Amino acid sequence: MSERVTPSVADDELALLTDLYQLTMTQAYWKESLHETPSTFSLFFRKLPASRRFILACGQQHAAALLSQLRFNDTAIKRLQDTQMFDAGFLDWLANWRFEGDIWTVPEGTPLFPNEPLLEVDAPIGQAQLLESLVMNLVQLEITLTTKAARITWAAGDHPVVDFGMRRMHGIDAAVRGVRAYKTAGIHGTSNVLGGLRHGLALNGTMAHSYILAHDDERDAFRAFARHYPNTTLLIDTYDTLTGVERVIDLLREEPSLTVGAVRLDSGDLGDLAKRTRTLLDDAGYPAIKIIASSGLDEHSITDLIAKKAPIDAFGVGTHMGVSEDAPVLDLSYKLVEYAGKPRVKYSTGKVNLPSRKQVYRRRNAQGHYCGDVIALRDETGLDGEALLTPLVKGGELQTATFAQAENAPARVREALHHFPSHVTALEEGESRYAVDLSPALRGLASNV
Amino acid sequence: MSERVTPSVADDELALLTDLYQLTMTQAYWKESLHETPSTFSLFFRKLPASRRFILACGQQHAAALLSQLRFNDTAIKRLQDTQMFDAGFLDWLANWRFEGDIWTVPEGTPLFPNEPLLEVDAPIGQAQLLESLVMNLVQLEITLTTKAARITWAAGDHPVVDFGMRRMHGIDAAVRGVRAYKTAGIHGTSNVLGGLRHGLALNGTMAHSYILAHDDERDAFRAFARHYPNTTLLIDTYDTLTGVERVIDLLREEPSLTVGAVRLDSGDLGDLAKRTRTLLDDAGYPAIKIIASSGLDEHSITDLIAKKAPIDAFGVGTHMGVSEDAPVLDLSYKLVEYAGKPRVKYSTGKVNLPSRKQVYRRRNAQGHYCGDVIALRDETGLDGEALLTPLVKGGELQTATFAQAENAPARVREALHHFPSHVTALEEGESRYAVDLSPALRGLASNV
Repeated sequence: MSERVTPSVADDELALLTDLYQLTMTQAYWKESLHETPSTFSLFFRKLPASRRFILACGQQHAAALLSQLRFNDTAIKRLQDTQMFDAGFLDWLANWRFEGDIWTVPEGTPLFPNEPLLEVDAPIGQAQLLESLVMNLVQLEITLTTKAARITWAAGDHPVVDFGMRRMHGIDAAVRGVRAYKTAGIHGTSNVLGGLRHGLALNGTMAHSYILAHDDERDAFRAFARHYPNTTLLIDTYDTLTGVERVIDLLREEPSLTVGAVRLDSGDLGDLAKRTRTLLDDAGYPAIKIIASSGLDEHSITDLIAKKAPIDAFGVGTHMGVSEDAPVLDLSYKLVEYAGKPRVKYSTGKVNLPSRKQVYRRRNAQGHYCGDVIALRDETGLDGEALLTPLVKGGELQTATFAQAENAPARVREALHHFPSHVTALEEGESRYAVDLSPALRGLASNV
Repeated sequence: MSERVTPSVADDELALLTDLYQLTMTQAYWKESLHETPSTFSLFFRKLPASRRFILACGQQHAAALLSQLRFNDTAIKRLQDTQMFDAGFLDWLANWRFEGDIWTVPEGTPLFPNEPLLEVDAPIGQAQLLESLVMNLVQLEITLTTKAARITWAAGDHPVVDFGMRRMHGIDAAVRGVRAYKTAGIHGTSNVLGGLRHGLALNGTMAHSYILAHDDERDAFRAFARHYPNTTLLIDTYDTLTGVERVIDLLREEPSLTVGAVRLDSGDLGDLAKRTRTLLDDAGYPAIKIIASSGLDEHSITDLIAKKAPIDAFGVGTHMGVSEDAPVLDLSYKLVEYAGKPRVKYSTGKVNLPSRKQVYRRRNAQGHYCGDVIALRDETGLDGEALLTPLVKGGELQTATFAQAENAPARVREALHHFPSHVTALEEGESRYAVDLSPALRGLASNV
């Protein structure tokens, strides 16, 4: 496995990052001798956020890597003992606990719709129950950020998008793993040094207003920075954006050996300023200097700027993408769907709960466009389409062949967005008409459990 | 310092969790021999989210602890060298880098308003510039979560609120440090084992639907769990909530040695179900059994339930609090305000940027209620009110006396919310009329820089 896994807490603490009831329920299973009973839990969501028409799967690899190495070491056992909630016999059992089950999941970068299983865990209930809180925490972050970033790269089309959001993200783990999620969505670069280095995304950087202000004159700051960094990007809005452009032009005329790669607009009417900046640069004979825009951008403002033909070459996106501001949470459920070989389901008014182990078949029409999914029983045969779920973990061991799929996640996202109908990829609020049906066998089982 | 600090990345990597331009700008300062120039950066926000009337300071202690121990070790230097963006001489300097400046900040749990400095860093610009991205990432998480949680505890009044949100939070660091933020806001307990153990918040837990479904009959599940855990909480909505209540009553009648502390409602019309549940329990002679409600709760639904006199004893809150869903981000700015002993400021149309080192004076009226703030120059004298900013770090060293203030943060939040006017504490959208003025000296300076 090439990906480095460093949780935000020490490895020997990670097993304690769970909800208390996972441990008390597991102790109850153990006391009742139910802990070895085979079970399947299914991870899915019932409802999309209002501002989403699909979500992209992401983060299952990182989660699976952490879960397969999860152990309760002596320190963890001691801390649980100190709570006085657990029996000595149960803690002895927990000290030898490890996950030895299977995890089935869709490839990272796969679009998913309500009620489709994102991931299923087959394991004795004393193992599968204990994964719930951590697996949900881990995958929700990457799903949420990848999905938002994919909307932004979709809006930007051929224009590169760079992540400037590290400072707005929710803590250290989000900032580091977020870059992995952005890369999956086709973001082209990041300002985040550790995130970019760890996840192999190009590092990008410009300059901050403080650098300009640390010089007596904006011209001095531009000259010094351009001398240090050939082909750099200069931030031109500290005092007045168009004056800034003129100062860049003056500098290049005075000192023709200098090169400037781009100027960055970070405030004001970006569309109007980009046009005026482009004209000034072109008229001065610098058509190769690019224009980068930032300042509160999201998929909607990028769509508007492109529709207005603003001559912006690349977009820097921070705040809105950093927390997926319009949909920061996905209401995932991790539900027991099979137990002791029998389908199980919780009945709730108005909520869909599909029993048993499942598979999703995704169908394409003659033109290669996706035309509908069927959620089926995992062992059901005779269904058309691509089966989305495969085992990522078997008998507690990561399946490296499946892991290699993640390498293709950015390509998978691009391919998928181009082959789903426009009522799925549309960025405005609304529901797609994409069909997700139940197979006859699942439908029959769901009404009879 | 009693608080354990464990970043989500290894200690020796944390210095790399920054935006690339911090490093390239610092190299530029170094090349220009500007890196030792004294500077002050101010951290503040210009605008509140639409759904907030104040924010609560939080996270500065954790940030200061990490920043004061920040170093670029051999591995970090090697990784920067590999980017080929940095000179050998600069990397040698960086290998010996450490923060030796001062950090002034308000006590954790202090309500703040737009343009008030949350934190100021006085240090050579080669040090202060490098802190920007990390300090913003660290404090934004805790500010955002504390502020949301304080709205929820304010709505709940005397009813305890328990955090159930670990699975919805943005990754591992958010989940662990989030509990610290919740504790500051007066949350009474958490389901999050590691977060609760590390930050000293009571652990709470009930049971999940899967435990019920792992038994052939809900009655069997209730009996088994109640036998394992005297005085436990039983989740009663797996099949039908009111049938669940009757089964709890039947169980206690059949087996009078058992005790049940509470029942938990997790779906449906919580207000109506709570009333019916209360009646059933009281009529059966179990007035001491409490009712805990969960299921998509936030400050608004809790306010409604309390207004309807729903007999709910405690609230479990997850999704909405876990990411501060209605305001997941705070648009913090970290701006150079003083350089080489002179005030500096970026001019931007429509944006307030206050130059120089500052202090905030908070005034109370004769009844002890807060009646207005004055933002002043730090060295200005003759101003009324409590000076909010004190040094948390001096000469690179944590000031433990100041640290002790965080112990009182929950009390500070409670006290503050009770002494701010209702147009500040109101939960509905809108702006407060709380006065934040500039001192004459600051006003004069701001218009003349």
